[in-house]
Amino acid sequence: MKVVSRVETLRSMMAALRNAQRVGFVPTMGAFHHGHLSLMRQARKECDIVVVSIFVNPTQFGPLEDYATYPRPLSSDKIAAQKSGVDILWVPTVAHLYPEGYRTRISVGPIGALWEGERRPGHFDGVATIVAILLSVLRPHTAYFGQKDYQQVCVIRQIIRDLHFDMTLRILSTRRETDGLAMSSRNIRLPPHARRMAPALYEALQGARLAVRQGRRLGRTITEAVIRHLHLAGITEIDYVALCHPETLEPLRRLDRHAVLLAAVRLGTVRLIDNILLSAR
Amino acid sequence: MKVVSRVETLRSMMAALRNAQRVGFVPTMGAFHHGHLSLMRQARKECDIVVVSIFVNPTQFGPLEDYATYPRPLSSDKIAAQKSGVDILWVPTVAHLYPEGYRTRISVGPIGALWEGERRPGHFDGVATIVAILLSVLRPHTAYFGQKDYQQVCVIRQIIRDLHFDMTLRILSTRRETDGLAMSSRNIRLPPHARRMAPALYEALQGARLAVRQGRRLGRTITEAVIRHLHLAGITEIDYVALCHPETLEPLRRLDRHAVLLAAVRLGTVRLIDNILLSAR
Repeated sequence: MKVVSRVETLRSMMAALRNAQRVGFVPTMGAFHHGHLSLMRQARKECDIVVVSIFVNPTQFGPLEDYATYPRPLSSDKIAAQKSGVDILWVPTVAHLYPEGYRTRISVGPIGALWEGERRPGHFDGVATIVAILLSVLRPHTAYFGQKDYQQVCVIRQIIRDLHFDMTLRILSTRRETDGLAMSSRNIRLPPHARRMAPALYEALQGARLAVRQGRRLGRTITEAVIRHLHLAGITEIDYVALCHPETLEPLRRLDRHAVLLAAVRLGTVRLIDNILLSAR
Repeated sequence: MKVVSRVETLRSMMAALRNAQRVGFVPTMGAFHHGHLSLMRQARKECDIVVVSIFVNPTQFGPLEDYATYPRPLSSDKIAAQKSGVDILWVPTVAHLYPEGYRTRISVGPIGALWEGERRPGHFDGVATIVAILLSVLRPHTAYFGQKDYQQVCVIRQIIRDLHFDMTLRILSTRRETDGLAMSSRNIRLPPHARRMAPALYEALQGARLAVRQGRRLGRTITEAVIRHLHLAGITEIDYVALCHPETLEPLRRLDRHAVLLAAVRLGTVRLIDNILLSAR
């Protein structure tokens, strides 16, 4: 595995490789868990060259968020990437990607203002901007993301379509702990009592799926059942639980065909997000 | 010369050509004048494959501007492009470039709010967005623009740098009529009396160059001389005359090293813009 930092180094490396070989790309902020590693292994199966980036992107963190303290365990990440069959680990610095005088920003419009965007103003424009930069430099054939950050995936699908990036987007299902908690680099911050409560989020979403199987269709009925489940589990700080259109993320009054059920809760200082897809059939 | 419309057609055509050959690109809104043709001829000299796009981009026109009536003489443009040695003429439709549900926009920040941007809110974000799309689809080695739209060139230089497009930007000097008027697709709209006054804009800018040679350095002294010249020529509707930093376009109090002198005036319903570079030496 080669570790590169500078854009120019990566570019000249890729120029020689790209034409003959399929390039798979897994953009990350590091602090790898099994979710990241499964993206890398899938890319390894499907592509000739696997590139993983680690970049904690300052422009997607709000002023009160955890940019400074976001975990950055680079040496163990390197070992894990190597074991997962990664060919090139790209670790750019902020100065590499945001040159002196940098001003350009990608605005994703309405989808970036909903749900997570409402709680984290500017977050998705920051995500869109860095992903566009990474894709523009690397130009992979396939890019891999996890379903856990569902809204992020929608935003990235939009910029790939709207800016006409010539690549395939692969979304892999959320990796979970054995008790159902969606894997996240921030889970290590959960104190023991919060960690014990955390699986209730996914349980509540699964409860909604059961309710749909039993014939429930109204958005309010479905989300209220989730909230009741969370309250019973002792989770009271609920940012949102929403039945949404699976692409636009606009709230749905009723489940008629397909929907995504999005949820975000707070356990002390740690926010958890999760989602499941629902189908009326 | 091949004429293509769809993104997919152009892409598959380019995939075969790009690796072995240098691709030069001239993005235009059509209605070719000698300025456009000189960009094409320069690309012809420097590149193996010359691609020209014609696209009147709706997102860079304000609601009160001339999108609907912008000249679109496609058949004569085709002949002129062919004569200038163009290999591929790309004429996408709005639906090709802005697919159903399109929402993404590139914001260029402060440089887009100055001068032309102040008079045409959103104009440069529209320009940046369409140029990013065109460059993303085509990925040329070199892109050609004219110096006449100086602020546009600064905006494009910024997005190429900030979004890490791997290409060279070539800026060619403004082509002028024999009386000095900068060539523009909108010049045909000047009624005879306005057309006779129009060369005074460039004369006034050249007067400023002379003043600098004679030792004038203060921004205000230089711009006031330009405005006096315009008034004497009967041009009274002056949007701005500004001595600016040649990259940031921030106004300069004094000419210490290099600057650009930007000007915009109105002659009836037609706006004229022009610029010259100034140096303190």
